[in-house]
Amino acid sequence: MEARVRVGVVGATGYSGMELVRLLSAHPGVELTYVAGHEGPVVPLAEQFPQFSSLTSLVLEPLNVEEAAKRCQVVFVALPSGTSGEVAIALWDKGCTVIDLSGDLRLPAALYEAWYHRPAVPGDVQRQAVYGLTEWHRQEILQARLIANPGCYATTAILALRPLLDLNLPRRGTVVVDAKSGVSGAGRKPTQAYQLAELSDNFYAYKVGQHQHTPEIEAELLGFEPLLLNTQLLPISRGIFVSAYVPVEQEVDEKTLQSHYADVYGTEKFVTVLPPGQVPQLKHVLGSNACHVGVSFDARSRVLQVFSVLDNLQKGAAGQAVQNMNVRLGLPEDTGLSALPMFP
Amino acid sequence: MEARVRVGVVGATGYSGMELVRLLSAHPGVELTYVAGHEGPVVPLAEQFPQFSSLTSLVLEPLNVEEAAKRCQVVFVALPSGTSGEVAIALWDKGCTVIDLSGDLRLPAALYEAWYHRPAVPGDVQRQAVYGLTEWHRQEILQARLIANPGCYATTAILALRPLLDLNLPRRGTVVVDAKSGVSGAGRKPTQAYQLAELSDNFYAYKVGQHQHTPEIEAELLGFEPLLLNTQLLPISRGIFVSAYVPVEQEVDEKTLQSHYADVYGTEKFVTVLPPGQVPQLKHVLGSNACHVGVSFDARSRVLQVFSVLDNLQKGAAGQAVQNMNVRLGLPEDTGLSALPMFP
Amino acid sequence: MEARVRVGVVGATGYSGMELVRLLSAHPGVELTYVAGHEGPVVPLAEQFPQFSSLTSLVLEPLNVEEAAKRCQVVFVALPSGTSGEVAIALWDKGCTVIDLSGDLRLPAALYEAWYHRPAVPGDVQRQAVYGLTEWHRQEILQARLIANPGCYATTAILALRPLLDLNLPRRGTVVVDAKSGVSGAGRKPTQAYQLAELSDNFYAYKVGQHQHTPEIEAELLGFEPLLLNTQLLPISRGIFVSAYVPVEQEVDEKTLQSHYADVYGTEKFVTVLPPGQVPQLKHVLGSNACHVGVSFDARSRVLQVFSVLDNLQKGAAGQAVQNMNVRLGLPEDTGLSALPMFP
Amino acid sequence: MEARVRVGVVGATGYSGMELVRLLSAHPGVELTYVAGHEGPVVPLAEQFPQFSSLTSLVLEPLNVEEAAKRCQVVFVALPSGTSGEVAIALWDKGCTVIDLSGDLRLPAALYEAWYHRPAVPGDVQRQAVYGLTEWHRQEILQARLIANPGCYATTAILALRPLLDLNLPRRGTVVVDAKSGVSGAGRKPTQAYQLAELSDNFYAYKVGQHQHTPEIEAELLGFEPLLLNTQLLPISRGIFVSAYVPVEQEVDEKTLQSHYADVYGTEKFVTVLPPGQVPQLKHVLGSNACHVGVSFDARSRVLQVFSVLDNLQKGAAGQAVQNMNVRLGLPEDTGLSALPMFP
Repeated sequence: MEARVRVGVVGATGYSGMELVRLLSAHPGVELTYVAGHEGPVVPLAEQFPQFSSLTSLVLEPLNVEEAAKRCQVVFVALPSGTSGEVAIALWDKGCTVIDLSGDLRLPAALYEAWYHRPAVPGDVQRQAVYGLTEWHRQEILQARLIANPGCYATTAILALRPLLDLNLPRRGTVVVDAKSGVSGAGRKPTQAYQLAELSDNFYAYKVGQHQHTPEIEAELLGFEPLLLNTQLLPISRGIFVSAYVPVEQEVDEKTLQSHYADVYGTEKFVTVLPPGQVPQLKHVLGSNACHVGVSFDARSRVLQVFSVLDNLQKGAAGQAVQNMNVRLGLPEDTGLSALPMFP
Repeated sequence: MEARVRVGVVGATGYSGMELVRLLSAHPGVELTYVAGHEGPVVPLAEQFPQFSSLTSLVLEPLNVEEAAKRCQVVFVALPSGTSGEVAIALWDKGCTVIDLSGDLRLPAALYEAWYHRPAVPGDVQRQAVYGLTEWHRQEILQARLIANPGCYATTAILALRPLLDLNLPRRGTVVVDAKSGVSGAGRKPTQAYQLAELSDNFYAYKVGQHQHTPEIEAELLGFEPLLLNTQLLPISRGIFVSAYVPVEQEVDEKTLQSHYADVYGTEKFVTVLPPGQVPQLKHVLGSNACHVGVSFDARSRVLQVFSVLDNLQKGAAGQAVQNMNVRLGLPEDTGLSALPMFP
Repeated sequence: MEARVRVGVVGATGYSGMELVRLLSAHPGVELTYVAGHEGPVVPLAEQFPQFSSLTSLVLEPLNVEEAAKRCQVVFVALPSGTSGEVAIALWDKGCTVIDLSGDLRLPAALYEAWYHRPAVPGDVQRQAVYGLTEWHRQEILQARLIANPGCYATTAILALRPLLDLNLPRRGTVVVDAKSGVSGAGRKPTQAYQLAELSDNFYAYKVGQHQHTPEIEAELLGFEPLLLNTQLLPISRGIFVSAYVPVEQEVDEKTLQSHYADVYGTEKFVTVLPPGQVPQLKHVLGSNACHVGVSFDARSRVLQVFSVLDNLQKGAAGQAVQNMNVRLGLPEDTGLSALPMFP
Repeated sequence: MEARVRVGVVGATGYSGMELVRLLSAHPGVELTYVAGHEGPVVPLAEQFPQFSSLTSLVLEPLNVEEAAKRCQVVFVALPSGTSGEVAIALWDKGCTVIDLSGDLRLPAALYEAWYHRPAVPGDVQRQAVYGLTEWHRQEILQARLIANPGCYATTAILALRPLLDLNLPRRGTVVVDAKSGVSGAGRKPTQAYQLAELSDNFYAYKVGQHQHTPEIEAELLGFEPLLLNTQLLPISRGIFVSAYVPVEQEVDEKTLQSHYADVYGTEKFVTVLPPGQVPQLKHVLGSNACHVGVSFDARSRVLQVFSVLDNLQKGAAGQAVQNMNVRLGLPEDTGLSALPMFP
């Protein structure tokens, strides 16, 4: 049997990190040899996380870049933005192929500093990183050794809107991306507002007009900027739903539009364009790497509506990261990613 | 002690009807003397609905218009659209003051037929009904004997956007109302899509571009039509959150805008305009008749965002109906409606 | 108009404290003159808590015992156990009538120290406090100036089981109280396990065999001790459901049993004994001070099952505290407590 | 490449059937060749169920026993109890290996009729069916051609309690199984009580003392009968949590007990016995075929508590059915079942 690629996860105690462990431990093409995310002594992973009780041979250890580089060919870094990028760069310097799930390497330094309100990773290294929105950057990912995995909102919005660029539809105003996310996207740090007692039965907008995924989206949707991204919290754990509104000058034929989308994504394994009249549902993708897209045209107001959904921890984070690794390693793109959504 | 006004509820087995019973049974200015909504024999209300176990003297009976008219001065009709209007008219004909919570009497006949896909109540009686958005139609309600209580989405959207009309801000495109609702708004009839197993952890858009509250909203927001109303389902029982997007030609000062809203709603008991920078949360109004509104201006994209929230069964239905009755009867507007929201 | 009793809430930033503010601000017999719970400067309450946006005249201030005693005749203390008792005693020393919602004054010192693993309030003051389970201690509450308001699990279990004591049914083993609670009972402090992402769709037992409400329950159910209390977390905000199992030696007639319960609680405003065959539902009491009880006998296994439900923040905490105040002040027991549950 | 075993699912429009399709379509040892569950014309499965959008080659067809038998070696029948058994027998008669997920073939006829209140499948065929609780009936399953897959509550309770039988601990009264289930266990038929608006934030007991899984459990726990099974509804989609109470005569050492359990289930791939002091959580198994068990002894009341959790649609239904098929076909028992739980 051929040797499997040795991979590691840094930041395994966060939600994206956990999802990486979940996906990689069952991935037939790799061997998960390194799991870091813990301060203090080495402990069995299953002891900290009973959901991994069947992964009896894995341990959770404190991060050590030397060690990680020695034991892994590919490393996924899923630390909070502000910390993640530097670790990713250090591992890249040591020769690993690195997929960073944070926002640290996705933007040019100036833009990063404007939206994240902190200094960018020094050395202009962001330029080296390939933006890992797989369906739109596959060619670059094939050769990349440093991949900036996209944000969850960004993935959902870009998959929804990018096919429109080809059509050059004259617009009549701002493109609005009204996005709703489950709270796992906000991370695992205890926060009063995210306690179940406060968030259950609740819904609200946050970071109004200031969400840091905005420039990522604009960079991929040239011609639509400046757009407005409104991010809102759903009282659920997982999933992102985007309702994008594109006001246009003239009548659009809904069937033609749907056909165009179906053509664009026709050979994609993870993007499904729904038939005319059908609207995506969050629960039809949760637990999978799928993204469902639906298009609609409102003739009265001449607004194109594009709806898209995905699981923020899969296609919006860990799943897409594994998809990018598959591309990079020359594996079939859905290796280890074929799980169907959990419904109901 | 002065005799209390005798009131009745028709359609008490639906969610709006239940909420009417809840509010009216504790209302100090009225006596709830008639509760209909049941086919078959008269039964104690508490037997059918254990949440009403303390209302030991109320019974649930089959609808009888003569009887209702005899026993009530004011009747609330909360039957499904398509049935409700006719019953309301019959009661009105008998001399009752009638508040109809359905969509049947809110629109001119032609518009009703176009959006509801069924014949309007005959006789052009819609013209007689006053549109009961209390804050904007108080003078007409004072004298009304037939009130068409507004739709839940319509109330939320109109309260959010109507203060903008005075400002005559030049627009750059379509006004989009992205609305999200708890499922109690869809009624109590068993429906597979609304089973908890299918709707929990879910979110999706429905009636895309076709929601029947659209013309109600447009009628109250002259100058903004045609607007786009997108209605979406939250995996919770109660509450509506509206994110309204108004693209404008020029810079708007957020504080001036907020002040304008605060002036418009300054003396209103149920509408709170939040301070600049604060966004409404659904859970801050659930169980109350309150509506919270927040305004924001995105300078990059020149889009005004207005957020508003309310409890769809209170300010969006039964609460506003009682508020209208209070106006009509000359009672303080918050009589029986002063309950604070249930948080957490 | 007669002067209303001046009352205060200490610990208003916790969930029980918030519920006290909600109830007392609408209570017709009292004036809420003091709200403490905040460190730092005095701020408008509505600024911190938008759910209280209509309470424009209230401020939140840092606790000052002298001040509280000067401004209030009755003070509710809703601080965490370990802090609350001492504050309650200090206010009592200053002459206030005090209702303490913590566990600090409910148990004799030795028992407190054994179950709470910390020193009891010194001076054996626990003996002075009346245990405020209203339905069973009304006579003592009438004269009390220091009331230890019961625990939420304890209230639910005692209301369920205490009527059995009269019957002297020979038992065949341990009484088991299997209790489930919404997470608001665990307090407002940010805790990873109570984040929505971790607790939604979840359920588990905690403090197995060690919950500190056990001795409270046993003290009120003499003859049933030692019993087993198993406390479990529901993925919801509010509500407690108790399933109590009492194995008995001989056949019990279910109707006779139900009649006995109905007699015991016949004149109680807040306890409803359901008809035979009907089981309480959590959602039939949420938002109200009601407790629903249902009894059942399983002839095969000779086990009596008693089910009871209540809202942990109302009858399980703030509502019962207000009920106790009403008794103490000679007001009708349901003054300010007549809100019906919020359903759906 | 070796030919894969041809399998079919009957009842694919129910929740267990959907889960079977989800598992079998990704199972490397079988080919899903037949999916029935639909009345009317043959339609693409993905059209009816967008969660299966990637299964583009499957169709949903009306049930035809001849056809099913021709196209499948193994058929899973997941129809409602009362219908399922007859279909299973018909397929078995045609030579298929059949795994029936309903309750129809689990009990002797007389017991079935007493608990299900309908006639049993005629011909005493129940005797032919092997009870498919894999961990305890593996030897019989190896040779079985007709397997009665256990009930969800039964699986959870039996896995929790069966290891106790060896210990012969003298008991002091009735064994009580307090069980809580997500609502997907109640099926997919629209039902008012299971609408999200009614069930969210709710919890209650149902079929008190009358749940039809009781005799299944008793048959596997000889010596513990009659026991009391109390079934209760959680406001979530998936998962079962059992708290079992076994009152015993003498002190039990918790560590010894835990060791015994760990020995009994030591080589099992799907049953994890948690370390002393750890309690199972529902969310640690959802989406997987895992069952977690935790044991505890309450010395004060001399009650043994055993907690167990599983996903009712996996180990409680479809997952265990596939596990049984794997045993029967001589495949590694976790083939197609190795997905880790979805957390958070």
